[in-house]
Amino acid sequence: MGKKPAKKSTKKAAAAAPPVPTPVIGWAIGQAEYDERVAKVRAMLAERKLDALVLFHPIRMAYTTGFFHLSTERPMAIVIGASDKIGALIPWLEQEHIAKSPSVTNVKVYPEYPSGGTKHPLLHFADLLKEMGLTKKGTRLGYDSNGYLDINGYDGPTLTELAGDGVETVSSRDIVDYLRAIKSDAELNFIIHSCVWGNLAHQLMHNKLELGRTALDISLEASTEASRAMLNALGPSYRQLTTTFGQPAGVIFSAGKNTSLPHGLGGGMGLQRGDILVTGSSADIAGYHSELERTMVIGEPNAAFIKHYEQMMALQQAGFDALKPGRTFAEAETEISKLYADLGVPEMQRHHTGHGIGLEGHEWPFIDKGSDYLIEENMVLSVEPGIYAPGVGGFRHSDTIVVRSWGAERLTFYPRDLDSMVVNI
Amino acid sequence: MGKKPAKKSTKKAAAAAPPVPTPVIGWAIGQAEYDERVAKVRAMLAERKLDALVLFHPIRMAYTTGFFHLSTERPMAIVIGASDKIGALIPWLEQEHIAKSPSVTNVKVYPEYPSGGTKHPLLHFADLLKEMGLTKKGTRLGYDSNGYLDINGYDGPTLTELAGDGVETVSSRDIVDYLRAIKSDAELNFIIHSCVWGNLAHQLMHNKLELGRTALDISLEASTEASRAMLNALGPSYRQLTTTFGQPAGVIFSAGKNTSLPHGLGGGMGLQRGDILVTGSSADIAGYHSELERTMVIGEPNAAFIKHYEQMMALQQAGFDALKPGRTFAEAETEISKLYADLGVPEMQRHHTGHGIGLEGHEWPFIDKGSDYLIEENMVLSVEPGIYAPGVGGFRHSDTIVVRSWGAERLTFYPRDLDSMVVNI
Repeated sequence: MGKKPAKKSTKKAAAAAPPVPTPVIGWAIGQAEYDERVAKVRAMLAERKLDALVLFHPIRMAYTTGFFHLSTERPMAIVIGASDKIGALIPWLEQEHIAKSPSVTNVKVYPEYPSGGTKHPLLHFADLLKEMGLTKKGTRLGYDSNGYLDINGYDGPTLTELAGDGVETVSSRDIVDYLRAIKSDAELNFIIHSCVWGNLAHQLMHNKLELGRTALDISLEASTEASRAMLNALGPSYRQLTTTFGQPAGVIFSAGKNTSLPHGLGGGMGLQRGDILVTGSSADIAGYHSELERTMVIGEPNAAFIKHYEQMMALQQAGFDALKPGRTFAEAETEISKLYADLGVPEMQRHHTGHGIGLEGHEWPFIDKGSDYLIEENMVLSVEPGIYAPGVGGFRHSDTIVVRSWGAERLTFYPRDLDSMVVNI
Repeated sequence: MGKKPAKKSTKKAAAAAPPVPTPVIGWAIGQAEYDERVAKVRAMLAERKLDALVLFHPIRMAYTTGFFHLSTERPMAIVIGASDKIGALIPWLEQEHIAKSPSVTNVKVYPEYPSGGTKHPLLHFADLLKEMGLTKKGTRLGYDSNGYLDINGYDGPTLTELAGDGVETVSSRDIVDYLRAIKSDAELNFIIHSCVWGNLAHQLMHNKLELGRTALDISLEASTEASRAMLNALGPSYRQLTTTFGQPAGVIFSAGKNTSLPHGLGGGMGLQRGDILVTGSSADIAGYHSELERTMVIGEPNAAFIKHYEQMMALQQAGFDALKPGRTFAEAETEISKLYADLGVPEMQRHHTGHGIGLEGHEWPFIDKGSDYLIEENMVLSVEPGIYAPGVGGFRHSDTIVVRSWGAERLTFYPRDLDSMVVNI
């Protein structure tokens, strides 16, 4: 298995952290916060006796340096040295973008992939490592992936192959992912704003539900209307840095039989009376996301619907109640699974209760029986235990919560009760 | 470096292939074509003496089996046995989806990631390999990635670690990527339809250009209008299987100073007279894409604009002319680079002339000096040499072409001439 750090972190929550100077109304994380993140990475490198951390994933690169970009076949990487340097491998195409990340000290630009000249881009990366003093015998390099990602037809060597015999390479994906899991005040603010615009997208979709219209058609119109409102409200400093549903604020849903499959791809049939809808909405604020999902029904619900809806509501409440700091995710999830069994529907639990949210719509940690990591203050998570009843439909509300000292605080605020979810059209 | 097959393929073009029975008006590849793809994979496995090919990338899984899905933290994989079996690792959550792929014979379902029970999902995958007879001493397993992708916080073992000492694991990403590069008649039809709807999105955006309105606002409205028209035109069998710009048909553009950076992230300023626009549009048809990009200017262009525009047009024409079957990509790209030098602007060539297009917006192969693969009939490529003039702007048209016996046939058909690209508002 992957080399994990000590499974039980005893790190104290961010309550004790110094005030974060990022202004909310800039819709971007400030440089001081990026510097703080790198300092935390370096503390973990020292703990693990690593000389540097190599990051190939675009979101981890963005999290540590503010360098947001589109990943393509052209490899990019960030190298955070244990002491003072930060290196970056950048294609010529993107070299001006990196200038927006002032913490990067060593930039290595290459012409093109597979090769604008005579060398594969990762051989330029090997040069960068050498220039940063990271190819000496005995060097220990952490990495998030052992080589650049499998994206858009890229192919190339692993970091281990590049680094050569004298250098030890160590799987260390968890270093940045752990830091990302504990949200700063600025991150939490952006996520709360995301909840507001996700709420608008959802409400507009709700208002536009109409018999015979397809889910995709309604979703497109609602998403665009919400996104345009958001862009007008937030003003010219707003940037769309990542995507969830493709638009700056977006909503999607599946209807009918599809809903008993949790991740149904959008179909083309129009809405009909009796359809069960499973929805989802979010918005990108400074690259951060939230998650709002609801189960709705067109027309008066039947007894089977009401029974499963109530089971789902009880399970979601159990999810909110279970997420207290100091327990493990496994303890929380085991408690929720017990309620599925008590309700007589253990086989209807098709997935874990939730996942982390931040720069990605799904990110570490996971509320799962296999995770003995601790729940910590300022983690942001989805809470979405589902009921998947064959022949009836899928039932799932998802809300975004932040873990406080006393438990889960719900950040999404769309109505959850059955009456509000019955659509009379 | 990655283990590449013989660099010069001598494979004959698809002209000699049997007729493909996929009906166009089903907006999906038919089962007979999936079977044909698997037969071609097996021929390559035999050539390389591999006992199976393990695919972790969702697009390669979809290409070989028709199993389209959203990748998350929950690992999935397809194993194509050299003789008759196809195995699949699937989370419980998605198990009904795999039923749509009738060629899969061995399905292994697991409860959850990191673990709904006691085992990491990849240990279930190890069980699947054993059941398929692929863990015996001397087995040779090809793979696209050495373990599941770095996505949504997933972490786990490599395939090499899983397979154990007696089994050899071999990097073989190119097997499926090579097959994907040569388009069938059905694939080509879908790409041609994609060009039509990408053209509509672009035309609607063009019609909506207005001083003071932001690029993002205009793009959202045009994309939604184009997508809704396309959904109505194609009818209820249409499915959105992949995404490029987030919507079924989409257009984006950047304006002003941003355009001298080829991949500028959308900014928030309104359009102004004198702005140079670099646009892009596409549409998803049965999972396939096209690429249409144009350079436009608001108001009468100045002399510097006209000079660089004409250089770009000459370079794109050189790109069309260079793509003849039987030459290598390196030969073609070297010819285009020579024209940059002849025009006196070698430093303005910031990226390769183009890339493959199909199920991904960028995919193998690349028109690059480092690629000595052969250009073959029925490859579909973008042709988009750019001029990046600091202080002036970016100049790039991208058209989608298919390689015919006689050279490049242009599939995108939006006007390219300067007069059509001057926006008088």
